[in-house]
Amino acid sequence: MRVLGIDPGLTRCGMGVVEGSVGRPLHLVDVNVLRTSADLPVAQRLVTIEKGIDAWLDEHAPDAVAVERVFARSDSSTIMGTAQASGIALVVAARRGLPVATHTPSEVKAAVSGSGRAGKAQVGAMVTRILRLDAPPKPADAADALALAITHIWRGGAQARIEAAVAAARSRS
Amino acid sequence: MRVLGIDPGLTRCGMGVVEGSVGRPLHLVDVNVLRTSADLPVAQRLVTIEKGIDAWLDEHAPDAVAVERVFARSDSSTIMGTAQASGIALVVAARRGLPVATHTPSEVKAAVSGSGRAGKAQVGAMVTRILRLDAPPKPADAADALALAITHIWRGGAQARIEAAVAAARSRS
Repeated sequence: MRVLGIDPGLTRCGMGVVEGSVGRPLHLVDVNVLRTSADLPVAQRLVTIEKGIDAWLDEHAPDAVAVERVFARSDSSTIMGTAQASGIALVVAARRGLPVATHTPSEVKAAVSGSGRAGKAQVGAMVTRILRLDAPPKPADAADALALAITHIWRGGAQARIEAAVAAARSRS
Repeated sequence: MRVLGIDPGLTRCGMGVVEGSVGRPLHLVDVNVLRTSADLPVAQRLVTIEKGIDAWLDEHAPDAVAVERVFARSDSSTIMGTAQASGIALVVAARRGLPVATHTPSEVKAAVSGSGRAGKAQVGAMVTRILRLDAPPKPADAADALALAITHIWRGGAQARIEAAVAAARSRS
């Protein structure tokens, strides 16, 4: 399966496409970081992110999309913009009928490194090893997006299938 | 001018359309609350909100859109969903080229009631009086959306014009 991982953000939005399946070597398809200027109104920045993700879905035709889950408990001043960007990522994928899942930062760290408390450098090093790259993807948002896609493949897309089954069962009842 | 006010939320998203100008009586055009079920995946709920706002823009063709500004300091557990819904509202308006502005809850309360600390009931009562309605709009999300639209008209759309001018000046430099 081919998965697009998205590490949402207003200033830098990481997008990484990985192909493979559980128990087989994974391949990097493409990776990029969308950037928008803090000088522009938030609405314009979100439109740029929407167009960028849409263009990547057209270009890479992933089977599923994995988006990092954002938490309110972060005390970062950028958390609202991150949440807004994540909403755009979810909508752009879901309105095409693509399966969409969210994974927490801890889940991603644990999946690629074995520890939910791994640091940025450790995640970057593991992504480099798993995808057999020459060097860690830069910036960190690019590595995080790839780690999300890897996590999604290794979890077998189970979460998305469970959510879809629950939603279908509820809509029938 | 005709303004669509949006009080963003995943469970209830208020949309109120008001027409008028500074110093003249304002008129209620239409008001509605989009609801999405907490049983559905967030991505699906956001798509429903996107479609609902898009349909309202088609139907009412506002000159501008005003969205409530969301803050991280709220400790509500729903704040992430609210931020995501606000991102959708901003994108749906901005990608049509409509002027989009955000107003804080305090600004809206101060504009319609004279006090930035006014309660829900007071805002509802003032919206009822300003638009000469028979009863306060229910639920509160409907009244809040109308209060946003009123605020935007009374502030003369100044914020949106300033933001657009700043953005234009920056893109030239």
